[in-house]
Amino acid sequence: MTTDKQLRQRGERVFPGGMYGHMSTYRLMPEGYPQYFRKADGCRLWDVEDNEYIDYMCSYGPMLLGYNHPLIREAADRQRNQIDIGNGPAEVIVELAEKFISQVSHADWAIFAKNGNDSTTIAMMCARAKAHKSVILVAHGAYHGSQPWTNRTAPGSAQSEHDAFITYRFNDIESLEAAVQRSNGALAGIMVSAFKHDAGKPQQLTDPAFAHRVRELCDKHDAALILDDVRAGLRLSTDTSWSALGVQPDISAWGKAIANGEPLAGVLGSESYRDAMASVFVTGSFWYQAAPMAAAIKTLSIVNENEIPKMLEGLGQKLRDGLYKQAQRHGFGIVQSGPVQMPTIMFEDDKEFTRGKDFCSQLIKEGIYFHPWHNMFLSAAHTDADIDQTLDATDRVLARLS
Amino acid sequence: MTTDKQLRQRGERVFPGGMYGHMSTYRLMPEGYPQYFRKADGCRLWDVEDNEYIDYMCSYGPMLLGYNHPLIREAADRQRNQIDIGNGPAEVIVELAEKFISQVSHADWAIFAKNGNDSTTIAMMCARAKAHKSVILVAHGAYHGSQPWTNRTAPGSAQSEHDAFITYRFNDIESLEAAVQRSNGALAGIMVSAFKHDAGKPQQLTDPAFAHRVRELCDKHDAALILDDVRAGLRLSTDTSWSALGVQPDISAWGKAIANGEPLAGVLGSESYRDAMASVFVTGSFWYQAAPMAAAIKTLSIVNENEIPKMLEGLGQKLRDGLYKQAQRHGFGIVQSGPVQMPTIMFEDDKEFTRGKDFCSQLIKEGIYFHPWHNMFLSAAHTDADIDQTLDATDRVLARLS
Repeated sequence: MTTDKQLRQRGERVFPGGMYGHMSTYRLMPEGYPQYFRKADGCRLWDVEDNEYIDYMCSYGPMLLGYNHPLIREAADRQRNQIDIGNGPAEVIVELAEKFISQVSHADWAIFAKNGNDSTTIAMMCARAKAHKSVILVAHGAYHGSQPWTNRTAPGSAQSEHDAFITYRFNDIESLEAAVQRSNGALAGIMVSAFKHDAGKPQQLTDPAFAHRVRELCDKHDAALILDDVRAGLRLSTDTSWSALGVQPDISAWGKAIANGEPLAGVLGSESYRDAMASVFVTGSFWYQAAPMAAAIKTLSIVNENEIPKMLEGLGQKLRDGLYKQAQRHGFGIVQSGPVQMPTIMFEDDKEFTRGKDFCSQLIKEGIYFHPWHNMFLSAAHTDADIDQTLDATDRVLARLS
Repeated sequence: MTTDKQLRQRGERVFPGGMYGHMSTYRLMPEGYPQYFRKADGCRLWDVEDNEYIDYMCSYGPMLLGYNHPLIREAADRQRNQIDIGNGPAEVIVELAEKFISQVSHADWAIFAKNGNDSTTIAMMCARAKAHKSVILVAHGAYHGSQPWTNRTAPGSAQSEHDAFITYRFNDIESLEAAVQRSNGALAGIMVSAFKHDAGKPQQLTDPAFAHRVRELCDKHDAALILDDVRAGLRLSTDTSWSALGVQPDISAWGKAIANGEPLAGVLGSESYRDAMASVFVTGSFWYQAAPMAAAIKTLSIVNENEIPKMLEGLGQKLRDGLYKQAQRHGFGIVQSGPVQMPTIMFEDDKEFTRGKDFCSQLIKEGIYFHPWHNMFLSAAHTDADIDQTLDATDRVLARLS
């Protein structure tokens, strides 16, 4: 058996810094977390040393209905046996677009791509093409991908690449209005996340008054309301995540869960943005790949037929309630934030996540994969028994920590 | 049977302009080309109406060894049965990086992503992070993806997003030197294509003197030589496409063919760029997907063991020689440009591609999928018999056209 340590050592030679991006367990996660995985099934992951985990990250979102889901795998394989890539798309691209559009109330058209990065970028380009203006408002600290334009402070982007972006504070109407002012007549769009899910901070649900004000300002300035639903999409609603607020975006960006882990992202748009989108040239070698589209069709069917967002709400509430009681019993101040389907779990007065990391480090030994400072994800493959097993583990760990 | 026309009509409702990107057959290809495909096998495609084609586009590059290749499908499926996505990568990511690095002479490290778009962007960010400067030189008219930064003239990007880019003319040393001058001490990198493969123009092989001058200027200014090998990679060489010129890049960008059609892209870099790369945060939800990596390991093995670039050269030369003789016999001035593995076929004095489109429109009826103004791609699944069948068809069509 190749150990995780051996693979990390080999990885150190071939990957800058040992690994890259959000899966740099090395740099990002506490002691005891595995870097490499060998097997995935249902809501469970096995690392290369065969340690088994109940997974509350779901690959950072893409897994929605369970790893290795037989019906989705079957749909993808059936498509692969016919055609996956070609000199044009397969029939499934039309079927998927029709199905997705009929499900999402603001949507009249679709574009498919591979990653959330692609979707947010396409959405932004569409907004600019419609407005013939270039300024996009983005929330301070929000994550919309790792392109140069989204990567404000990181090395690799040019200062001038950020000139067309102005930041506002999420849920803060005054700051939003000031940002619109600063855009000085050049506003093309306002980009919003489904809710405030910045890494390293407690999450904030969207204030309905804020959402309505975003809509008003977009209407007033003929700018696009771009909803980045990449992370939250299909977990809170079968429609967009802002549908419950009664606010419709003009363009919504999707990714992660829409094909239950097959690589697919998408942009949905309203009728008035159709011509603008047609004028923008965006493409990628693998954007037309048919197997992930077949997987997405099946995923959307299952999500709708089984009211998956509601089911996840039940599971997430059970986890939240259980943790709340345990924290009280063991004398911990625990901060559970965000929608229960995508919980962030932190400790009070724990700015450096010292206690949170300790909690997670002990949980990982118990076979529970939590994250100390990023939102987690529930899936439809989690059962009541899995939540119970998780709560048994958190109870033991909190008892030890207290 | 659903007809292509029916699907196009449905597509018109759900896709802006009927379809998007480089697979908009609608807008881009001559009369008679199908928009939608049903089946792929070997070097052949079948459209939704069951018309069969010998394919010379190979999905615009990704298909290198044949559609539905049994050994590659087996490798990908075996990986899928274990794990495709997780909270970290699988062992194959290390194996693939080791294998790829050992094959490509300049490479000491690797990063994997999904599309060529991702690779060129990562390469650019790495160059900037190393130089602590931001200007990137790109060739006028070269295609490096459809991100805002590469999309100079298209709607959707802000003018300021192009401020850090300066263009030069490929193969033109004077223009290159002038661009370096204009960068005014802020040069971070020079991006080059494997050769000049701009769509809509005859291709140009890289002038060795130009390539050496790029290297000298990069060395002199401590800037990165970034080779965009996305389109040509693995067709001209098992090393980078500039290896035959004796010029090593610092960073090479790969995509398309490296996993024979499974969605995968990659960046390879030299030792001196390792720390810079480690400082850049780039990631994507599906960049760590294991099945395409297993496919890539098998693809690289087959490419090396069977000297695929040489094999493609033989096939491409046979096609070029045959077409040359036919054109002479039928009295056509034909312009065959670029490496024979990636031929562009045009007609003399045919600026609007009127004759070229006519030629292609008639060929598509003969079951041969050519492109009138974009480079085409040979694959290892093409046989001598396929080339003969193709030449029979081109002979008939040229006879009719003359």
